Amino acid sequence: MSAPTATSDALDRIRAAYSPQLIGALAHQLADLLQAHFEKVEDKDGPVLNWSPPQDCTAAAAEWLDRPPLAVSHPLDTNRFVEEFTHRVRAVLEHGNNLHHPRYLGHQVPASVPIAALFDAIGSATNQVMAIYEMGPWATAMERAMIEKVGRTIGLSAGQFAGLITHGGSLANLTALLTARNVSLKAAWETGVPTGNPRPVLVVHSDAHYGVTRSAGILGIGTENVRRAPLDDRRRMDPAALDELLSQLKGDGHPIVAVCACACATPIGAFDPLPEISDVCRRHGVWLHVDAAHGGAAAFSDRHKHLVEGLAQADSFVFDAHKMLFMPALCAFVFYRNREHRFEAFRQEAPYLFDPSAPGMAEYDSGTMTVECTKRAAALGLWGVWSLFGPQLFADMVDHTFALAQSLYERLTAAEDFEPLHEPQCNIVTFRYRPPGMANADTATLGDYNRRIRRRLIESGEFYIVQTNLNGAGALRTTIINPLTTETELDHLLQAIRHTGQELGGG
Amino acid sequence: MSAPTATSDALDRIRAAYSPQLIGALAHQLADLLQAHFEKVEDKDGPVLNWSPPQDCTAAAAEWLDRPPLAVSHPLDTNRFVEEFTHRVRAVLEHGNNLHHPRYLGHQVPASVPIAALFDAIGSATNQVMAIYEMGPWATAMERAMIEKVGRTIGLSAGQFAGLITHGGSLANLTALLTARNVSLKAAWETGVPTGNPRPVLVVHSDAHYGVTRSAGILGIGTENVRRAPLDDRRRMDPAALDELLSQLKGDGHPIVAVCACACATPIGAFDPLPEISDVCRRHGVWLHVDAAHGGAAAFSDRHKHLVEGLAQADSFVFDAHKMLFMPALCAFVFYRNREHRFEAFRQEAPYLFDPSAPGMAEYDSGTMTVECTKRAAALGLWGVWSLFGPQLFADMVDHTFALAQSLYERLTAAEDFEPLHEPQCNIVTFRYRPPGMANADTATLGDYNRRIRRRLIESGEFYIVQTNLNGAGALRTTIINPLTTETELDHLLQAIRHTGQELGGG
Repeated sequence: MSAPTATSDALDRIRAAYSPQLIGALAHQLADLLQAHFEKVEDKDGPVLNWSPPQDCTAAAAEWLDRPPLAVSHPLDTNRFVEEFTHRVRAVLEHGNNLHHPRYLGHQVPASVPIAALFDAIGSATNQVMAIYEMGPWATAMERAMIEKVGRTIGLSAGQFAGLITHGGSLANLTALLTARNVSLKAAWETGVPTGNPRPVLVVHSDAHYGVTRSAGILGIGTENVRRAPLDDRRRMDPAALDELLSQLKGDGHPIVAVCACACATPIGAFDPLPEISDVCRRHGVWLHVDAAHGGAAAFSDRHKHLVEGLAQADSFVFDAHKMLFMPALCAFVFYRNREHRFEAFRQEAPYLFDPSAPGMAEYDSGTMTVECTKRAAALGLWGVWSLFGPQLFADMVDHTFALAQSLYERLTAAEDFEPLHEPQCNIVTFRYRPPGMANADTATLGDYNRRIRRRLIESGEFYIVQTNLNGAGALRTTIINPLTTETELDHLLQAIRHTGQELGGG
Repeated sequence: MSAPTATSDALDRIRAAYSPQLIGALAHQLADLLQAHFEKVEDKDGPVLNWSPPQDCTAAAAEWLDRPPLAVSHPLDTNRFVEEFTHRVRAVLEHGNNLHHPRYLGHQVPASVPIAALFDAIGSATNQVMAIYEMGPWATAMERAMIEKVGRTIGLSAGQFAGLITHGGSLANLTALLTARNVSLKAAWETGVPTGNPRPVLVVHSDAHYGVTRSAGILGIGTENVRRAPLDDRRRMDPAALDELLSQLKGDGHPIVAVCACACATPIGAFDPLPEISDVCRRHGVWLHVDAAHGGAAAFSDRHKHLVEGLAQADSFVFDAHKMLFMPALCAFVFYRNREHRFEAFRQEAPYLFDPSAPGMAEYDSGTMTVECTKRAAALGLWGVWSLFGPQLFADMVDHTFALAQSLYERLTAAEDFEPLHEPQCNIVTFRYRPPGMANADTATLGDYNRRIRRRLIESGEFYIVQTNLNGAGALRTTIINPLTTETELDHLLQAIRHTGQELGGG
């Protein structure tokens, strides 16, 4: 044979990297390290966020890559690998953001159910992927089973709908809006989005996530052709105003790609009145898409499912299991009410994937429906947790975190020096701290002050909360998205904000 | 407080789901199960693919979701959870595709380094994510460190380039081509892609992955406005023909979004002559993008890096660590030669993410550069494996699998009843089986026969290989992407194809 075979050194290195004994030893060590980590973090031992400036943190991560590699000679020194692996696991754990700390009340990213990660690791270790069914039969099967369960829970009709799983809410919204675009502007896939006048427009909730408005830029519609639907005084899309806007746009001759509503929108967690909006869209013959990335989970709760009434009437909607089903990132669902739309987003030929000798298989080839070709077994964690605990766990976590948000709101209302900015519909609470000394400060000044408080607070590691911009000024924002958070922590949060504010010299 | 607090049942369920003791116990069990699984699979004990029809497999996956959930009363019956967890892990492992089986020679999805999955699990368990630096400081830092290392390995100049990591090669190509579109057609982001005549066009390698041609449909250019650049007799883009095509398109007044070359293209793994193509594009002032999802890894090998000479001269290119760096899905890089292009793909406002109190942070907020908002710590596995084994492991695996492909080619050439369809440049080998009885069969008939052989072969579990369409007819295709494959297995493959062909009655 003319091709040089691998050197013995190279083969030793490959054998070490694929050694079942080594993976066993490292996995046992990881089990101990993760257990100890969760014991510590859930017990509030240490900071929430391990803050360091990004330049320093990047230099520290890079430094590990320049160390001399470990020896791989026969027999393999497993203990040495376990030791060095431990150092690296510790480096990761000691520089991260501790979402499982009861004082993490941050972005719409949960303290995920840790057991989900163990299921996820099976897929990762064995590299079960999709695109085509035969590459990951069980990965595909679990995804299909979860699409059916979640779709039915949200109220879709068996046999009528279709769904897919993709990597994140932004990609999910993009995929659904691509379908809407291809259905609404029939030849757009083949010939491009017409840019003659009047231009096609995308109508969005005024507080829609940037991923939604961005889609207009990506899909060739143009961000200038986004029209923001008016909101009511609780920041929900106003059906009457929407009706008027659609009439006006149609009167002016604009093709309407879609209306994009929210369940819920991010700034204050407002849920749109979907039955009314759905009626308006149907009357105008316009595609209704709903971004239910966060709020779709309300469907799991008897107490809160009224918030997403009408969601199943939308032409398409997205829902992130990695938000309020407390799964690790990323596991985002796209649903189409009418399964005939499932292949509208993409049309392509890939002969080495889609096999003419098994044409019926295309129905199970995920690549026909997602931006991703190779795709992780993203439903594995959800499948595992659902099958061990049942869907009641998800209902419990929704109910519990929504109730805690209500508690926080009541505390803010009762406190003289805090201003809640809305009554929460879910687990998002936005507010400002206004100490007596700032009683007459204008909103912009107060917003800046609150932003500075937050930055100091999160960098201290005491709490993790976020900030937003409401009516042009900064505000504090929390998502109660760790079910280990307690009412006591909410009291401590108010105290911590007060102390930090005093340290900054306000009030 | 008016909000009802959680029931004791609900709290028990939540506590169980987050119990550090339980995750420890399950993780130890998983360690044993994974070790046993890899011992078995790497030893060829059992089938490669566990084939079952998709309807049956989906029904089996769904059945687990309808079982009664486990009891979560205090104290938790950990043993019972371990037992039930074991059943579910086994269900996953027993229905999957065994990429680590030495007879897996399938798609461009590797038998991944299992240790990478353990690092990945740290990110998954603790849900370290990006979008903004403060949510996942170490996740961000590792990604930045890997972008620097991989970019420099491929030949980019320190301080001059930028990069990002995204979920898969298709999304990576889409992101880079979006940048190219926004740079080439200046107002496209804001006002849409102009569809007046002459239309903007995207010039692609005739064998480009469907993810590339699809991008024209997604980005509002239109798939009809894709122009396929002619190939030479080894299916590489022909620089002289490209030059002519660009002159003609420009002469006709078409704005050119980009030229998209391949390193390598999927059907036979052909690497384009990048230095010459780069010259042509520069002379015409056209953006050059290269899909190096598979072949970028050649840069790690002294023996093969000549294949990607000139890659660093492209305006943008993508590279998948989840292909030839043998990482589990998904970890795809996008690189921009000129770092000034890093924010061109997206332009948006998201006040609750991008904090005016820390403006310098945007440079480290990945959400400004990727489709994903919330993004997994996708570089964790690569960071961990690189830091334990050093980059030599990647060079070894490239060299070894490329050499095995050469061996397979030599076997096919030597065999009277096989027709190799190209000399391999990397680890992709495409060929047909032509038994004596089909000596005069036309290519279409032979192609169908080969497709039927493959389907029977993979469903038997004996080998996993794929099929493609070459010059309009079916062909067999292998990617040597499991470094545990040996030359003996290659001999067995030819025998297995012969036996299967005989069973089908051909020849």
